[in-house]
Amino acid sequence: MAEYNALLKKTLKTLLDEKKYPTLKDILVTMNPADIAAVFEDLEEERIPLLFRLLPKELAAECFVEMEPDRQELLIRGFSDLELRDLLGELYVDDAADLVEEMPANVVKRILAQADPQTRREINQILRYPENSAGSIMTTEYVSLRPSMTVAEAISRIRKTGVDKETIYTCYITEDRRLLGFVTVKDLLLTEDDDTPVSAVMDENVISVSTMADQEEVAQMLSRYNFLALPVVDTDGRMVGIVTFDDAMDVLEEETTEDMEIMAAITPSEKPYLRSNAWELFKHRIPWLMLLMVSATFTGMIITGFESALAAQVVLTAFIPMLMDTGGNSGSQSSVTVIRALSLGELAFTDLPAVIWKEIQTAVLCGSALAMLCFVKIMLVDKLLLGSTDITVLTAAVVCFTMAVTVLVAKVIGCTLPMCAKKLGFDPAVMASPFITTIVDALSLLVYFGVAQVLLF
Amino acid sequence: MAEYNALLKKTLKTLLDEKKYPTLKDILVTMNPADIAAVFEDLEEERIPLLFRLLPKELAAECFVEMEPDRQELLIRGFSDLELRDLLGELYVDDAADLVEEMPANVVKRILAQADPQTRREINQILRYPENSAGSIMTTEYVSLRPSMTVAEAISRIRKTGVDKETIYTCYITEDRRLLGFVTVKDLLLTEDDDTPVSAVMDENVISVSTMADQEEVAQMLSRYNFLALPVVDTDGRMVGIVTFDDAMDVLEEETTEDMEIMAAITPSEKPYLRSNAWELFKHRIPWLMLLMVSATFTGMIITGFESALAAQVVLTAFIPMLMDTGGNSGSQSSVTVIRALSLGELAFTDLPAVIWKEIQTAVLCGSALAMLCFVKIMLVDKLLLGSTDITVLTAAVVCFTMAVTVLVAKVIGCTLPMCAKKLGFDPAVMASPFITTIVDALSLLVYFGVAQVLLF
Repeated sequence: MAEYNALLKKTLKTLLDEKKYPTLKDILVTMNPADIAAVFEDLEEERIPLLFRLLPKELAAECFVEMEPDRQELLIRGFSDLELRDLLGELYVDDAADLVEEMPANVVKRILAQADPQTRREINQILRYPENSAGSIMTTEYVSLRPSMTVAEAISRIRKTGVDKETIYTCYITEDRRLLGFVTVKDLLLTEDDDTPVSAVMDENVISVSTMADQEEVAQMLSRYNFLALPVVDTDGRMVGIVTFDDAMDVLEEETTEDMEIMAAITPSEKPYLRSNAWELFKHRIPWLMLLMVSATFTGMIITGFESALAAQVVLTAFIPMLMDTGGNSGSQSSVTVIRALSLGELAFTDLPAVIWKEIQTAVLCGSALAMLCFVKIMLVDKLLLGSTDITVLTAAVVCFTMAVTVLVAKVIGCTLPMCAKKLGFDPAVMASPFITTIVDALSLLVYFGVAQVLLF
Repeated sequence: MAEYNALLKKTLKTLLDEKKYPTLKDILVTMNPADIAAVFEDLEEERIPLLFRLLPKELAAECFVEMEPDRQELLIRGFSDLELRDLLGELYVDDAADLVEEMPANVVKRILAQADPQTRREINQILRYPENSAGSIMTTEYVSLRPSMTVAEAISRIRKTGVDKETIYTCYITEDRRLLGFVTVKDLLLTEDDDTPVSAVMDENVISVSTMADQEEVAQMLSRYNFLALPVVDTDGRMVGIVTFDDAMDVLEEETTEDMEIMAAITPSEKPYLRSNAWELFKHRIPWLMLLMVSATFTGMIITGFESALAAQVVLTAFIPMLMDTGGNSGSQSSVTVIRALSLGELAFTDLPAVIWKEIQTAVLCGSALAMLCFVKIMLVDKLLLGSTDITVLTAAVVCFTMAVTVLVAKVIGCTLPMCAKKLGFDPAVMASPFITTIVDALSLLVYFGVAQVLLF
């Protein structure tokens, strides 16, 4: 897809160079908003307003929503008041609220001045909720029905009020804004008798989330239950909005990217890679690199502490990288598996003993297999093939024993730390490979030199 | 959510122990299929058919779809032919095809024998497509309309045929099974004049995918365009089915888990963590551990090659872990960022020069900052505070120079390998932390000893 889009962008740019605006417009109206927005991302700044004004109103608004904040700001700064008002009229309230959140203060002032009073009130309501909460990603535009309506009345209400709603397919039955149940358009359409009251068709087992619920949890629920939308209720139990599946998909994608970044020792950023410059990448990467580098002081201290032993048996040094890497890999296998299971909601803290037991068994299997292979490798490759005469059976035994212990320690630490982090309210993804590796390095060296001192000296 | 489910399961088990079946049934019918399926996962085998038979037909089928294959097999083996036929009647065709794919041969034979001929034909059609293709996850049950129909006729057709369709909200306009466009139920309902022909309301710019398209790409498209469904066309351009957003969400979740597992040097498994036993975990983890351990032979060889140098300057050994870890962390930051951008479709192979240039700049920034901090740390902490008398300014300079070079090498390798892997048709996720670390380890040791030999001896 990426390759195809690159081609398309080139064609559009050529048309723009040649000022073939009617042809450009003809192509643009056949395209999807997300694809048009991608074209804008790569365009020189001065050409953006020109291309944007070629789009019909509704499509223009749809593209606008898909753009990066810097592009949006550029466009708004170039808009007349009338153009801005038109755009705001086309936006859904949750998208307008997102926009207000991203823009600098002076742009926000212009936006709020041009929005109609009702929209302004709704934007303010959404902005009151903390970042990453269900309230902050919901939209207040949903279809509500009264329980006494008939199916025919319900359908006619949907036809009358549906145009401004983000989804009409799930409608909510409320009384005094209290949520009684939901009904899908499919249920309504498939009901044969048009005079059936909505209350007879609706499903009362409605799952709702609180405005303060974590957005990732809400997205997981939408995915788990295959819902098109989830109703959001405030602390008084009144329905205030819905979160739709497309926002949930975006949240899941963002949260996954964030998890992966944290697991790779990067502080998360919301900017796509190609749009971040080196300085931004540096700022997101250097803190963890520095912290982890400094914490490697401990491993250094351990080696220094055994310096005299190492000087007598330099051959031991050659196996340090292998032991450290295998320990790190074993630990990160366990931590990544557990972190993922936690973020999918498959694991609770009460599962910790079961998890540790499973990891111990796996570690014993992995550790013994690796130790055996390692012994064969050392004796055949390192000693026979490469002719390292310093290697004795005892050296090999020390290395292999350390290997087995390291794998065990790594796997237990790897599964325990993320679960404890989650319990303590931290992000478990922090307890991934880099962090685990640093701890396991130190421990495996302690075991290595400890065993070596007992057996070899 | 995980904690809450644990509590609920306990309550249900108590009710089952006390044989309070009517109360159990009352609770179950208020629950969501995915939650009921989770209850079945933890139940002793002999009680599963009992609990399953308490569910009303439709809910039973919905739960069945959410269960793990071993539970499904257990249930089918206990079913009478009539029960099996009832279940198959309630399943959507794509779910039935999934089932046939997962079950052992003798169970499949029974399923196909009990399915009606039409369903059997459709199952076989879906099964013909390769695993992970759009054809294999599509459903053949969608609403198709003729272009000459009026809006009123279209709505009435939906009401008549909609009950068996997985989604009715996006309808496809076809002629001789050729896809002309699509129309949403929202568009149909919001059209004021019921006599408008469907062809006037439909959107002709319909995005479709081929039956052979990769399922991850299809899922990314659904997420990118916020569609409820995407039409699937065969090689002759005839529409054969649709992929719905809920299946896309599942695919994205699976593919993300798979990416994370591969990035942590685990061969992917489809079984949830808590349901995999130690032997299964072992089998998925040991191949990579062994491969990576054996490839550490190179780093060992490098150290052995410089053994005499190390014996003279044992203090150099103390910094090996820090250099290796920082190199590994720097490399995995770049590789994970690039792997994620590739899987989100943000990067094409043509971006490689831009990516390498960005990483070089970032590496220079990170490398110099780390080298400076490292120098200060070595002189203050290691030399002054810990009193390591062997450390000279020259030693510190060698370590810091190696640090900077390692970071540069790690970042360039980290961003290049995943992109080349993708270009060559491999999974870029393989080129993550463990693999990069092994390569960077060897290179950083070469630089370290090379520089040390020039400057220190």
